Amino acid sequence: MHTLKALRPVARDSTAETFLAQLARNCHTRGWAFGTSCNFSAVVSREPLVLTITATGLDKGLLSPEQFARVDASGGVIEGSGGPSAETALHVLLARVLGASAVLDTHSVWSTILSEHYADARGLWIEGYEMLKGLEGVKSHTHREWVPILENDQNIARLADVVEAKLAQCPNVHGFLLRRHGLYTWGASLEQAKRHLEILEFLFEVTGRTQIPTHTVAG
Amino acid sequence: MHTLKALRPVARDSTAETFLAQLARNCHTRGWAFGTSCNFSAVVSREPLVLTITATGLDKGLLSPEQFARVDASGGVIEGSGGPSAETALHVLLARVLGASAVLDTHSVWSTILSEHYADARGLWIEGYEMLKGLEGVKSHTHREWVPILENDQNIARLADVVEAKLAQCPNVHGFLLRRHGLYTWGASLEQAKRHLEILEFLFEVTGRTQIPTHTVAG
Amino acid sequence: MHTLKALRPVARDSTAETFLAQLARNCHTRGWAFGTSCNFSAVVSREPLVLTITATGLDKGLLSPEQFARVDASGGVIEGSGGPSAETALHVLLARVLGASAVLDTHSVWSTILSEHYADARGLWIEGYEMLKGLEGVKSHTHREWVPILENDQNIARLADVVEAKLAQCPNVHGFLLRRHGLYTWGASLEQAKRHLEILEFLFEVTGRTQIPTHTVAG
Amino acid sequence: MHTLKALRPVARDSTAETFLAQLARNCHTRGWAFGTSCNFSAVVSREPLVLTITATGLDKGLLSPEQFARVDASGGVIEGSGGPSAETALHVLLARVLGASAVLDTHSVWSTILSEHYADARGLWIEGYEMLKGLEGVKSHTHREWVPILENDQNIARLADVVEAKLAQCPNVHGFLLRRHGLYTWGASLEQAKRHLEILEFLFEVTGRTQIPTHTVAG
Repeated sequence: MHTLKALRPVARDSTAETFLAQLARNCHTRGWAFGTSCNFSAVVSREPLVLTITATGLDKGLLSPEQFARVDASGGVIEGSGGPSAETALHVLLARVLGASAVLDTHSVWSTILSEHYADARGLWIEGYEMLKGLEGVKSHTHREWVPILENDQNIARLADVVEAKLAQCPNVHGFLLRRHGLYTWGASLEQAKRHLEILEFLFEVTGRTQIPTHTVAG
Repeated sequence: MHTLKALRPVARDSTAETFLAQLARNCHTRGWAFGTSCNFSAVVSREPLVLTITATGLDKGLLSPEQFARVDASGGVIEGSGGPSAETALHVLLARVLGASAVLDTHSVWSTILSEHYADARGLWIEGYEMLKGLEGVKSHTHREWVPILENDQNIARLADVVEAKLAQCPNVHGFLLRRHGLYTWGASLEQAKRHLEILEFLFEVTGRTQIPTHTVAG
Repeated sequence: MHTLKALRPVARDSTAETFLAQLARNCHTRGWAFGTSCNFSAVVSREPLVLTITATGLDKGLLSPEQFARVDASGGVIEGSGGPSAETALHVLLARVLGASAVLDTHSVWSTILSEHYADARGLWIEGYEMLKGLEGVKSHTHREWVPILENDQNIARLADVVEAKLAQCPNVHGFLLRRHGLYTWGASLEQAKRHLEILEFLFEVTGRTQIPTHTVAG
Repeated sequence: MHTLKALRPVARDSTAETFLAQLARNCHTRGWAFGTSCNFSAVVSREPLVLTITATGLDKGLLSPEQFARVDASGGVIEGSGGPSAETALHVLLARVLGASAVLDTHSVWSTILSEHYADARGLWIEGYEMLKGLEGVKSHTHREWVPILENDQNIARLADVVEAKLAQCPNVHGFLLRRHGLYTWGASLEQAKRHLEILEFLFEVTGRTQIPTHTVAG
């Protein structure tokens, strides 16, 4: 992924967990991380690959830096209490294939709505917005960004294969939607991943408020 | 209710009140608990049944752990200043019949709108969303969740009978709407009840933004 | 106004200003008090009538208890730095005619939209909602609440006459809208006024999201 | 610009940076400053002209008073670490041509939507709202405010020429939109610029919710 050339691995201290816990609480406040199903991860080592990732089943509104587990390239827990989420495999995949240093999986109202509305088109184009320049590597508002939409699947191994194939097809995307599920985005640093999340959610809301049709009643 | 098998009674200390007061203030911030009419309760004892419940007429934006009363299985106050809400009978019912450890009654804009729009159908189906997995016992986004809608009634004894009959019909629901009133949801723990509230409100907003018809004007 | 029988005059200490400053900041956070044009007041003495009211031209997001002036029945400043708002006459009127102990003038998006949409009808009916019970004296969701809409006017003396005549016609209202301007509501106590504000804003949003027509485009 | 007669230059201490950093964080919370592309500036000296402006590429949700650079009339950095934004030239222009003491460039959902919807008309009229009186120099809700919309352009020098020409045509505006980009507004003081931002965003939301057409589906 050309946008991640300036790779910045996260140091093996508490910084990543502190950053991600604060981000998770912030996302919960915004309504992008209700329930316990969102996950946030960061690479803490490249050789061998180690990720720190939110443990499963936690309230993101109260998340603390202690509530992360460390997993290896196979997704197995090597440190930390609490099992990792079933979706850990997707985080590992994005870190491995794209070289992402941080991966965010959030569930907002607008991303959920768009993921259904554009499902038949298997994605949506977003173009012409200044805010697109917040996506790494984008230099002009004339950029056309493709956001793929993949069918949701409870079989995460199978889903990971589908994601990997899609990313091979579309190596320059900055995120993708799972249908009626939510958004995956990432970055070459914690800050960049947070920026991509904010930019995509902003553009989803603009798109949703202007493009999603409403039912009408007489009068 | 199969979802509440892992019953976790709340200890008789201040934990439940602290948790619920913070949740109430959070709901107020989100606009889900304006005015003073919402109520939050938790089971503090099973034998005999004792609930701690928000005293009547309080600003949920300023709620403190001291502003709860303890009531017995008949809804009578056994401890704490301030009378309980008239709706205490519904909280006791849910704790008794479903084994709920915490009951939340909130009034959001979207739950109010949906409770009217789907009133003739006496409920709404929500299906196909990943977020449904935040409802206890749900393992896949393919789940179909029924949210019953009951007519609002100022006669709480009569309403309690209607609720009890409806829950006997639909034992697997995770919440119900009172028409033009709001949501009742619950859980086998404080955390689970909070999760159900967030999940249902999220799904109500998605449903409301895509399914509620709008009036149109020419042009 | 029958709803204000249990009159609770505000003590002459800092309580009213502290309460109102916090409420003003809260309203600013919600987007109900942008710019500097909203005003918040409370009665600090009945005989003679003295109100404490936000001084003119202040950022409500930063309001402190020191930024209030005290005015007499004629609206003249008797204490405090900073001139009172031009709309002080309306606050004094509501305290005098209705016996209100606190008066809130806020400008939300939904109140502004409704005040235009229902202007030709000179008001709107709101009925059938449980939240109506948050309005003092309302005992059932079957209540029908009339919210008058008055034409906006920069001549405050003339506007005060119009308001007084309208309140003589509709003595049981809990608030009124000024067209394309915002809401005036009040209460027999600070807490009651805050409750009325929250209830009315909630009901305005429900009404706005379901009743305000949208323009449509093909497709 | 007649509205800026009472010019209040900002003192050369940390006040401006503290004010703007707090405002930036506030805007980020509201979703008006996602990503890193918004900029906030203030005049710290008139002779010679010196501005303090947010350094480029910063998360506005975490902005601190230290993260500003000082630039001269040519936009060159004379103090502070971090390069200034490419859009610095627009800030300098507004300070020079209009005598603005503070300039705010924000990106909200509604300003973005309106900037596209009214692009063919090259602007939008907003009239009849009490909140217009929050714009400096406006004395009545009957005021008609013109908000110009300019085509977005990555060539900032060329864009600055277009802005300067537009302001010569429309010297009384309080802000302008860049198409699919966002809002520029300003004031004769930090407080006035903040007020203009809030007023314009409020009026954009009212306009957006009532005037922006939606697509419809059958049923």
